[in-house]
Amino acid sequence: MSDFSIGVDLGGTNLRIAAVSREGKLLEKVALTAEVARGPDCVVGDMCDAIRSLSEKHRSEGKFLGTGIGVPGVIDMEVGVIRKSANLPGWSNYPVRDEIERRLGARVFLNHDAKVAALGEKWLGAGRNVDNMAMITLGTGIGGAIILDGKIYYGMNGMAGEFGHITIEPEGVPCGCGNRGCAERYASATALVRMAREAIDAGQAPALVKAAASGAEFSARSIYELAVQGDEPAKRLFHRFGRALGIMLADVVNALNLEMHVIGGGVESAWEAFAPTMFEEMRQRSIVYAATAPDDLMGDEDSSAAPGPSRTRKKTIVTRALLGSDAGLYGAARLPAL
Amino acid sequence: MSDFSIGVDLGGTNLRIAAVSREGKLLEKVALTAEVARGPDCVVGDMCDAIRSLSEKHRSEGKFLGTGIGVPGVIDMEVGVIRKSANLPGWSNYPVRDEIERRLGARVFLNHDAKVAALGEKWLGAGRNVDNMAMITLGTGIGGAIILDGKIYYGMNGMAGEFGHITIEPEGVPCGCGNRGCAERYASATALVRMAREAIDAGQAPALVKAAASGAEFSARSIYELAVQGDEPAKRLFHRFGRALGIMLADVVNALNLEMHVIGGGVESAWEAFAPTMFEEMRQRSIVYAATAPDDLMGDEDSSAAPGPSRTRKKTIVTRALLGSDAGLYGAARLPAL
Repeated sequence: MSDFSIGVDLGGTNLRIAAVSREGKLLEKVALTAEVARGPDCVVGDMCDAIRSLSEKHRSEGKFLGTGIGVPGVIDMEVGVIRKSANLPGWSNYPVRDEIERRLGARVFLNHDAKVAALGEKWLGAGRNVDNMAMITLGTGIGGAIILDGKIYYGMNGMAGEFGHITIEPEGVPCGCGNRGCAERYASATALVRMAREAIDAGQAPALVKAAASGAEFSARSIYELAVQGDEPAKRLFHRFGRALGIMLADVVNALNLEMHVIGGGVESAWEAFAPTMFEEMRQRSIVYAATAPDDLMGDEDSSAAPGPSRTRKKTIVTRALLGSDAGLYGAARLPAL
Repeated sequence: MSDFSIGVDLGGTNLRIAAVSREGKLLEKVALTAEVARGPDCVVGDMCDAIRSLSEKHRSEGKFLGTGIGVPGVIDMEVGVIRKSANLPGWSNYPVRDEIERRLGARVFLNHDAKVAALGEKWLGAGRNVDNMAMITLGTGIGGAIILDGKIYYGMNGMAGEFGHITIEPEGVPCGCGNRGCAERYASATALVRMAREAIDAGQAPALVKAAASGAEFSARSIYELAVQGDEPAKRLFHRFGRALGIMLADVVNALNLEMHVIGGGVESAWEAFAPTMFEEMRQRSIVYAATAPDDLMGDEDSSAAPGPSRTRKKTIVTRALLGSDAGLYGAARLPAL
């Protein structure tokens, strides 16, 4: 017998639902397509059907603790509404939490996708031994979340952790949020493709031209593959990516002096291409990071150097996520179990 | 009878020591010159003499709770050392806390000047009705501090709140911290004077030329006075100041979603000259601020507009400090009383 909860990860493309035991064991996972074009009512209907079906099925194994849901975008936690989401156009101000609760006849825990990913990594992943961390998810945009004393830090309206909209270039590329030069305009999958097209238009990138014209989808992954093969224009794009991410992280380290910064999301898999520049920028731009960085710049655990008055004991760790795309599912399932 | 503590505010020019009652009443204040040129041992000696004298004198009135000290710069709270301070050259890695404790034969509470100012404003000033706030002090540089749940948030090494070193212009003016384009290179007293000299060298600012050549000290105050009189070049400097401060605050609001941001320090008195640009930048650059800003942009209290699902209830307040230069003295005295 094992108590369990349901975690939901709603994205712009995928809708994934999992039953997870209180101990963090995956009992069952269902992957659906999020039919976003058919509107929120339809997607919420599919979601509620799957939640009902999974919770019925596993009820014989233990007590059902409830449902947690991670959604993308700027969430107003107070009223349970998505204020703005690049991945879910048409959901702005849709009463998503109320609607799901009405259909299920039960309270659900709606939360921001990056916040539940942070909770997942804190529970079972890279952050399981720290109590204070930031999560940065690199995907279509940049998601962010803060864990303090082991719990999600929400801020006044549940909007804390919008690191992706930290200004990197005050006169830079316009962003959907109303600002210019936001971090996510340089350090996301969308940004990589945009910057690659700019390099193509400037006639500076023959291999990128070929990849874009190949018929296969031209994505962050295609650019990464060229960079790994040593293509200079593709490598430059990841340097710009790493630079923006490094500036953003330097700001976060200066403001919050946290123990750990976990980098996740799909583009995290390009770590080798962007991380060296990211660490270089952080070391140069953050006085707090420079004073507390581990000797091994790639973010591994504390060195064994003796502490002393001229040396700060605790290190600022920047490291890769461990749970991959399941962090959000686990974290969402954790919400009702807390 | 009233229990009391001693608060010390150590700056690059002034050394102020006060006895404050547990209820926040100022019992006595002593202002000395910080003879920084004579070295840390000498300044610490003067400080300890004054602490001893004040605590003896008021011991008849109530129990002496101890001494709190606010110092400028990047402080390593773990080891009680100033890592870097523009105002206290020669104090880097001086064991300031140990040395004061050794001389007084008692434990003292060493803290960062902006953190104790935040504690003062939280205790008796602008933040007395909120539990979550940031303090920004505009002086020689920019100081910063975060209060969460009514308490100073230190971060892992006591270095949280270094807002002044948030990057505003990635290729901007070099900063002593090793970065380029830090907020405090555009939004501090030092920055105003530097930008004014640049405008003078560019031949664009006849009134500034006159002020700089007048024999009186050419300071942030002289530039402010010209701006108030309508001098366009002086006004432009305060627009650059407000822009940098607005970008920095937008980053802080996006990351932390706090209830209140209290602006203090000497240059706060130029509020009218920089605040309109600062609010304009924040509204444009922070999606969180845009969703939560009060209707009255100058940061006054919550409007009476009805809350509802399309409206976030709690507002993000950016407001002026109330305790002026005494915030740090009160906050330092609060440390042993907590």
